[in-house]
Amino acid sequence: MKKRVIVSIVAKSGTGKTTLLEKIIAELKQRGYRVGALKHDAHRFDIDHRNKDSWRLTQAGADTMVITSKEKLAMVKMNPNNEEPDVIEIVDRYFTDVHLVLTEGFKGNTFPKIEVHRKERSQNLLCRGETYDPTLLAVASDEHLDMDVPIYDINDAQGLCDFIEERFLRQVS
Amino acid sequence: MKKRVIVSIVAKSGTGKTTLLEKIIAELKQRGYRVGALKHDAHRFDIDHRNKDSWRLTQAGADTMVITSKEKLAMVKMNPNNEEPDVIEIVDRYFTDVHLVLTEGFKGNTFPKIEVHRKERSQNLLCRGETYDPTLLAVASDEHLDMDVPIYDINDAQGLCDFIEERFLRQVS
Repeated sequence: MKKRVIVSIVAKSGTGKTTLLEKIIAELKQRGYRVGALKHDAHRFDIDHRNKDSWRLTQAGADTMVITSKEKLAMVKMNPNNEEPDVIEIVDRYFTDVHLVLTEGFKGNTFPKIEVHRKERSQNLLCRGETYDPTLLAVASDEHLDMDVPIYDINDAQGLCDFIEERFLRQVS
Repeated sequence: MKKRVIVSIVAKSGTGKTTLLEKIIAELKQRGYRVGALKHDAHRFDIDHRNKDSWRLTQAGADTMVITSKEKLAMVKMNPNNEEPDVIEIVDRYFTDVHLVLTEGFKGNTFPKIEVHRKERSQNLLCRGETYDPTLLAVASDEHLDMDVPIYDINDAQGLCDFIEERFLRQVS
């Protein structure tokens, strides 16, 4: 079976996870990788536009709605019993054709993690706070830190992608 | 392997396919079925809301973006080489856990079809026009027609669901 490559970008809320993820995705795409992105949402998220046909089919009760065109495919799938599927199940089902999956959130999982840190947001890190998280691989920070993992500048998508490539992608490509 | 049940709702544009589909989906859900809906879009459809995190990840270049919550899962997946996957491939990949898939469009396929007809829209039917389409099973019409397949009133979702159930779902449930 193909090796799963999952890297989680974690941070305290409001630190700028999505901004860094955008940069890392763009950089990895430029390097020729097929990239998956998986985001957890703690709330009831909205997707699709009110009154569009696809929206109407979901509203009518479709358990799974797929809309497809030459360019892309989109799906909205209700979870049976309001139970979220396991993240590994999601990766194995929907991300079989990418080189790696970058996740936003899922900080409770044991995937290798890159934590985003901003000094204004918090003094200490999520993965080096009350508990020591051994899955932390690197930090993207806007201040100098003295730590047991490599520290990259918060805007250094190239450096972070070199790190991801070196660590996870050399052996699969 | 599980039997695929696919029924296509077809019509000339502007006849009200989506409205009928909504009613059929709601009725089948009420009868306890798990229902899939698959829509083809000839254009570049929009899904997701500008500037939401999930939208930003797709815009940044993610080949597959999945957002998940307790309630539902949504995915936006770019087609490699701008080539639409085959509809059977889509059904086998994404609709394994439903009792039937109702498709909107895909009129060129050989799935069993229900055609929606409105006298104001057109005098003749898509499936009984220049060519005789043997996959036509029934018609939902707003006028009396004399044809070789059963005719239901365009608002008779119950009758159409009885027909679908009788024809396709008795043997799988």
